[in-house]
Amino acid sequence: MLFDLAEICRMLQVSVPPSHAVADSLKFDGVSTLELAGETQLCFAERTEQAQAVRGSRAGAVIVPEDFPELEGCCLIRVPNARQGFFRVAAHFSPASGISGIHASAVVDDGAGLGADVAVGACAVISAGVTLGDRCVVGPGCYLGPGVVLGADCLLEANVSILRESVLGARCIVHAGSVIGSDGFGFAWDGSGHRKIPQLGRVVIEDDVDIGCNCCVDRATLGETRIRRGTKIDNLVQVAHNTDIGEHVILVSQSGVAGSSSVGTGAVIAGQVAISDHVNVGAGARVGGQSGVTKDVPAGATVFGTPARAMRDTLRELAALAQLPTLLKDVKRQSREIEALRERLARLEGPES
Amino acid sequence: MLFDLAEICRMLQVSVPPSHAVADSLKFDGVSTLELAGETQLCFAERTEQAQAVRGSRAGAVIVPEDFPELEGCCLIRVPNARQGFFRVAAHFSPASGISGIHASAVVDDGAGLGADVAVGACAVISAGVTLGDRCVVGPGCYLGPGVVLGADCLLEANVSILRESVLGARCIVHAGSVIGSDGFGFAWDGSGHRKIPQLGRVVIEDDVDIGCNCCVDRATLGETRIRRGTKIDNLVQVAHNTDIGEHVILVSQSGVAGSSSVGTGAVIAGQVAISDHVNVGAGARVGGQSGVTKDVPAGATVFGTPARAMRDTLRELAALAQLPTLLKDVKRQSREIEALRERLARLEGPES
Amino acid sequence: MLFDLAEICRMLQVSVPPSHAVADSLKFDGVSTLELAGETQLCFAERTEQAQAVRGSRAGAVIVPEDFPELEGCCLIRVPNARQGFFRVAAHFSPASGISGIHASAVVDDGAGLGADVAVGACAVISAGVTLGDRCVVGPGCYLGPGVVLGADCLLEANVSILRESVLGARCIVHAGSVIGSDGFGFAWDGSGHRKIPQLGRVVIEDDVDIGCNCCVDRATLGETRIRRGTKIDNLVQVAHNTDIGEHVILVSQSGVAGSSSVGTGAVIAGQVAISDHVNVGAGARVGGQSGVTKDVPAGATVFGTPARAMRDTLRELAALAQLPTLLKDVKRQSREIEALRERLARLEGPES
Repeated sequence: MLFDLAEICRMLQVSVPPSHAVADSLKFDGVSTLELAGETQLCFAERTEQAQAVRGSRAGAVIVPEDFPELEGCCLIRVPNARQGFFRVAAHFSPASGISGIHASAVVDDGAGLGADVAVGACAVISAGVTLGDRCVVGPGCYLGPGVVLGADCLLEANVSILRESVLGARCIVHAGSVIGSDGFGFAWDGSGHRKIPQLGRVVIEDDVDIGCNCCVDRATLGETRIRRGTKIDNLVQVAHNTDIGEHVILVSQSGVAGSSSVGTGAVIAGQVAISDHVNVGAGARVGGQSGVTKDVPAGATVFGTPARAMRDTLRELAALAQLPTLLKDVKRQSREIEALRERLARLEGPES
Repeated sequence: MLFDLAEICRMLQVSVPPSHAVADSLKFDGVSTLELAGETQLCFAERTEQAQAVRGSRAGAVIVPEDFPELEGCCLIRVPNARQGFFRVAAHFSPASGISGIHASAVVDDGAGLGADVAVGACAVISAGVTLGDRCVVGPGCYLGPGVVLGADCLLEANVSILRESVLGARCIVHAGSVIGSDGFGFAWDGSGHRKIPQLGRVVIEDDVDIGCNCCVDRATLGETRIRRGTKIDNLVQVAHNTDIGEHVILVSQSGVAGSSSVGTGAVIAGQVAISDHVNVGAGARVGGQSGVTKDVPAGATVFGTPARAMRDTLRELAALAQLPTLLKDVKRQSREIEALRERLARLEGPES
Repeated sequence: MLFDLAEICRMLQVSVPPSHAVADSLKFDGVSTLELAGETQLCFAERTEQAQAVRGSRAGAVIVPEDFPELEGCCLIRVPNARQGFFRVAAHFSPASGISGIHASAVVDDGAGLGADVAVGACAVISAGVTLGDRCVVGPGCYLGPGVVLGADCLLEANVSILRESVLGARCIVHAGSVIGSDGFGFAWDGSGHRKIPQLGRVVIEDDVDIGCNCCVDRATLGETRIRRGTKIDNLVQVAHNTDIGEHVILVSQSGVAGSSSVGTGAVIAGQVAISDHVNVGAGARVGGQSGVTKDVPAGATVFGTPARAMRDTLRELAALAQLPTLLKDVKRQSREIEALRERLARLEGPES
């Protein structure tokens, strides 16, 4: 993809900088940082203090706020919000998946239903009864089990496994190595061994959900494991059977939600958090990194610690804990002081007391 | 799979409910929850308070305890233990793997030995010297390295990697994306870099072990990493080199056992627990979620916290910690009180003291 | 591989033990532990107390320190450092990858550039613009995206995904199931949903880096995610976008480094540690297991806890915490004692005070 300055400015809905308005031959093939950019790349700067870095950059043009200082010899594109504008332009440079058509080595069952313009990578395997919406891209080495349904415009990166009867909505992205629809972890002790409880439910993922690399989303024992629309999941996250992850939730890397728990709309779960089974995290709640959530979290609350409690309380306890070694000494000294007072008092009181 | 009411009752070893004994045409094609079930699905209820939900359900029949109230118009199948009975029936509805025969795209080395009725999915790769027991199912995209041995009736889900010389017993299940037999993490600093210590041992997994998705079980440096029979491992679990995981152990999601440690028979390791290297967790021990086990845990003990100590002690400390902010104020006040007493005492004692 | 005693001694740069110097027919095909070794295997022992175990072992020969006791009938090979010597020999028994040539089922784009003696396993997929250095081994089921570059002598185990434009140096090892170069986790709320920030940077991994199984190394939003030479990463580790992992760093299993953070040369990050975003861990720092690093760690420091602070402080606080339940009682008793003193004092002072 190659865009000239006029095209870039059109994406940003601004006019071409006056300094470069005439006979400009700049062509852009990508975006980068001020430090790394070459002459054919675009950058952005947000703060006036970056003027020096902008001047030193080899970037072909820099997107800046409207009040950014003028810099002789630099092509500055002024917009209301430099960061947002930059990423709007950047999206035009995102490489396509690199996959088109059905690769000759892919194994697509005759009983699968493929929408228009579906792409299937090399050595991908698509089972009977699979339905792929228009423009879905299935990466190399992916496996889609019997009855899997993907809405339009889904992207599965390489080596993803989506197991039988899982349903994904439109515009979902599943990054490499993730597994959707595996058996929930359910066993009952039968006196001589852990007997497997059949896992007969399914996974339903709604529209616009992103799932990172090497994640696991387990099918329900009965009924559904559901991830609601707009939710974004980082790498190495565990979503257990029968969970209900609300809309627009953020699950950061290496966090885990145990069986039958729910996370409310817009909640933010930080990295390495564990949410126990049968717990409800309310809408808009925030759970601090590495917390262990063992009971319900009210909507809008911010919690932290293992076990998780109000962030404020945990921080107060941690601050107090830092004073504890000194406190121990203080109390010992007080003990001696009290003893000394008692002796002085006894002396004053005399033998008869 | 389609079963009629008489067949379901035979599975449960009970007689057909009198209300439906004559000319019954019910056919069942699955199981579900009371809320989601349709007319061709079976459910279960355990408590009398669920009577309302049973009445409202569209389920074709409901498995209930013997003393459950009679409900007009509902097909209730009475059994001694509703939950156990339900899952016994449910197992009959578990879909088969969907894989049969050796797929044309699978790459099976001529030097591999396949038992009777083995199934190998599309794009699976089976190396020289592999031995697969009867009725093993190897999912699509799996890789089995040289010399791997699987006992009868093993199931490998999609994209599993089992590396050279790993041995699995009968009836093991390995879920999608897991890696068995990779190199242990062993390095020695040679003055200029971390030099890799060759990892020459192997992994031995005994009968009836289940391993979740995207787990890692590393081969031993020398000798064996062993997971004993009946142990069940959840998703994203790390089992390092030279560990010995006992019989019927439970390792919950995102837990990790470091090199050369052991976990005794029947121990339960909760989610996100870390067990340090060269530590022994005794038989029947229970380790609470997110604990960090840094020293041996006695058999039967329940531990919690980082570092893990007796659950009782950790909980007592946590309860005490919650009182610490107040305690700090109390001690400060006492300090002032002692000072005040000292002054009053000095006044009483007069200038000569 | 089969070596005789003279060859083994040559590897160790020592002479053949006098007891076995003449007409020796010992042949070795592997290494093992004293307990498990057979007659064709080598072992090592480091301490004199192991003499009994050496005598009881069926090993064909045992590598021992120079001052180890002589044992009748045992073939002892004396070297300055038994452990180092053993692993030097052991490396000769490491099995080759088992992969040679380009497998017929591999999909190698015509536009890929392969060095001399490259091996590509079954069902591996190599995209256009990939460059593989001499003697690279690409395991079965791997996917290499467009423009990926590998230096000489890299080894990718099975089912690894290396996504577009990632660059690896020479002699890197990536274990099974890992994903290099996936999108960073970057979103901006646009008023109605989390909008994906395009991830346009890349991953650069320098020479001699090892990456464990089922790890994730995300590409930079802009610029680079960089892992510097000699660094060793265990299984299930998360390395987020725009991080800079220094030279010879150790990242133990299930640890995670969040976006834009850096880890200095030679730092050791223990298991299940979380390093927050935009944090710098100094060179040579050590972070204890399960710590949560929320602010910069000075070079050479040892930290522990969540949030991480100086190991010494955290341990002192933990020791103090163990005394807290008793302290609470002590302070309550002091309160009563102070009250008693106050009353006695009031009595002495009389009604006028």
